[in-house]
Amino acid sequence: MSVQTHTLKNGFRILTENMPGLESTTIGVWVNAGARNETASQNGIAHFLEHMAFKGTKRRTSLEIVESIENVGGFLNAYTSRETTAYYARVLAQDVPLALDVLGDILRNSTFEAKEIEVERGVIIQEIGQSLDTPDDVVFDWLQEVAYPDQPMGRSILGPTELIKGFNRNDLSGFVAQNYGPENLILSAAGAVDHDALVKQAEALFGDMPRGTAPLAVASRFIGGERRVLKDLEQAHFTLAFESPDYSGNELFPAQVFALVLGGGMTSRLFQEIREKRGLCYSIFASSSPSVDTGMFSIYAGTSGDQLAELMTLTVDELRRAADDISEAEVERSRVQMKAGLLMGLESPSARAERMARAMTIWGKVPTLSETVEKIDAVNVANVREFGTSLCVSGKQAMALYGPIEVAPTLASLNETLLT
Amino acid sequence: MSVQTHTLKNGFRILTENMPGLESTTIGVWVNAGARNETASQNGIAHFLEHMAFKGTKRRTSLEIVESIENVGGFLNAYTSRETTAYYARVLAQDVPLALDVLGDILRNSTFEAKEIEVERGVIIQEIGQSLDTPDDVVFDWLQEVAYPDQPMGRSILGPTELIKGFNRNDLSGFVAQNYGPENLILSAAGAVDHDALVKQAEALFGDMPRGTAPLAVASRFIGGERRVLKDLEQAHFTLAFESPDYSGNELFPAQVFALVLGGGMTSRLFQEIREKRGLCYSIFASSSPSVDTGMFSIYAGTSGDQLAELMTLTVDELRRAADDISEAEVERSRVQMKAGLLMGLESPSARAERMARAMTIWGKVPTLSETVEKIDAVNVANVREFGTSLCVSGKQAMALYGPIEVAPTLASLNETLLT
Repeated sequence: MSVQTHTLKNGFRILTENMPGLESTTIGVWVNAGARNETASQNGIAHFLEHMAFKGTKRRTSLEIVESIENVGGFLNAYTSRETTAYYARVLAQDVPLALDVLGDILRNSTFEAKEIEVERGVIIQEIGQSLDTPDDVVFDWLQEVAYPDQPMGRSILGPTELIKGFNRNDLSGFVAQNYGPENLILSAAGAVDHDALVKQAEALFGDMPRGTAPLAVASRFIGGERRVLKDLEQAHFTLAFESPDYSGNELFPAQVFALVLGGGMTSRLFQEIREKRGLCYSIFASSSPSVDTGMFSIYAGTSGDQLAELMTLTVDELRRAADDISEAEVERSRVQMKAGLLMGLESPSARAERMARAMTIWGKVPTLSETVEKIDAVNVANVREFGTSLCVSGKQAMALYGPIEVAPTLASLNETLLT
Repeated sequence: MSVQTHTLKNGFRILTENMPGLESTTIGVWVNAGARNETASQNGIAHFLEHMAFKGTKRRTSLEIVESIENVGGFLNAYTSRETTAYYARVLAQDVPLALDVLGDILRNSTFEAKEIEVERGVIIQEIGQSLDTPDDVVFDWLQEVAYPDQPMGRSILGPTELIKGFNRNDLSGFVAQNYGPENLILSAAGAVDHDALVKQAEALFGDMPRGTAPLAVASRFIGGERRVLKDLEQAHFTLAFESPDYSGNELFPAQVFALVLGGGMTSRLFQEIREKRGLCYSIFASSSPSVDTGMFSIYAGTSGDQLAELMTLTVDELRRAADDISEAEVERSRVQMKAGLLMGLESPSARAERMARAMTIWGKVPTLSETVEKIDAVNVANVREFGTSLCVSGKQAMALYGPIEVAPTLASLNETLLT
């Protein structure tokens, strides 16, 4: 690994990692702002803005933006999450300067024309419709809402249709002004990339940006509760969440290991007990997702209505039991999985560019491979069990259920199982 | 590119490609058989069998199979399509012999115990339920059925629940006996891999397999027609398909270019006209999917019920217009996209291993980069327009609609537009 970093005078950061032997590069700008930096009446604006970045600049029409990248065989994409908005391209080596020029253009020169805003409103309303037809999207949005009610962290990324219908040019410009200052942007490129050339071009494109303001940051409080929505679906969708460590928490790695052992792969306890031994589901998994000031440990499973109660009870039993008796062999397997996953991830330019940008945002530096390995190796049975126990005794969970869920146990009864 | 090949005496083929600089390898066995090699009463057995490969062998329990790979930080996966079943692992370099040993074990020593069949039946029934809750899965299964009615090519991969409930050990063994002969298996590995060592181990594991029988192969006949299912969904899902070239067809590359220009990326006509200019949808795309003896050119879009008629009419107009006036610039962009995509795909070991195996199955050899580039360069405006025109005048389409589709035009009226 050979990460090179540079910070412009205005705080704009640049990260590159040359990967010998590659002929292509992933290059993008990661903005340290997303749906959680919105006020209630702004909900959906971060994502709307991401769409508008492709709708025309002072220099390029909407079509010219995508043509410039696709004409050279590359592709351009973007996403919005609760804490990040990313704009990135994958191109062949000789087209890196072009890709950076386009990224600079869409980030600095977007015109947000009224006509284009109207069109994109329609697109986003259709995107919301598509999400509403996807039961696991729906149930995870509800889980988030139940976990963090009346807070930016609990709102959906797409936002409600009613708000989407009302956004205008000023709403977009206002969100840019607040969140897209140079200190809040990270340019990250991995693959066939030349650091010095990239820094020089970035200086020309972003160096004159005036320093910005700090994004709105409302502290997250995990509250919990339950939401049960009956619907005529084939499957009952079950999600359960607990608060877990944020990015700076000491338990960050133990939480990842607990998630892997409980529901991270085909050897995991939930997969083995509930799918492999009993055939009660096709999809079941657990994950630990840290954020800046909170984290969510969540479990998902889908099954038919008549098996839901059994599946939920077994899931909670497994969680309880794992907190008591996770073994050294299981922890060791997780350590090995995390280390191998790290190496395999480094073989993809897109994964590398994203990893660097996220790490820089969160910790202000990109950990070396050996620093990360050291943290993985520091995880032991005691601190993994301790983390599992902390979930069980927390007395605070969020649960969302969707589908044929008539016979589902209450959250209170699951909580009792966890406390026994 | 440095593909090395070897064929064992019994016809079992081995393909490797060493990728300098990589520390991991994707290794798998691609079986030249899938759902289209099933009889009507076998529908779903190819996929059931893929599940059963993980449920225990003479040497390993179900848990031991996944532990052997996950304990070294790798992962094991499989998929079933209409023409292929694949079993593969991604592991670090030193674990390639282990991965191959596991692949050999699950392919040759699976025990199909009655108890495990019962459990897996439940898992697959849940998988079917999940698919039925995913509207675009549903609508594409119907499209296939309408295109190829009462033929193996038109049946779903998962199969109907009623048949899944009845399969037993003999059904599984029978499908293996018919389809899993050594001539029908290809071992493919890309990344950090040593060809000679792999061949030696493969010889020991697969060399004594007796030659097998030819899979059942019912010729596909594209018939077409329409299926319209009203359902209370947020979006109306629209799919339209035409017969297009099989793998050996001269129009294979012109068809790919026509699909790219019409609906392959953000510069494509459907994306520009229907999403970017009018905001009528979030997802819209066209693709050309060749098979051994047929191919399907298909279009998908999702929109709200009140916009569906407009979207469908515009889509067919665009198809008609593209057949007339696709430009040299558009064809050139597609050529560049295909060539760059080829290079970028080569940077992933999984994509390489799969590409080699599929190519060997289809053409009996792996085309070099320059052979493929030559075929791409041979595509010109004339043969792309000709292909587009052949779709328009074919008079034979398949259409499937799902959701709030009350006002959707008939297939006959779309066909009229295409013929004008």
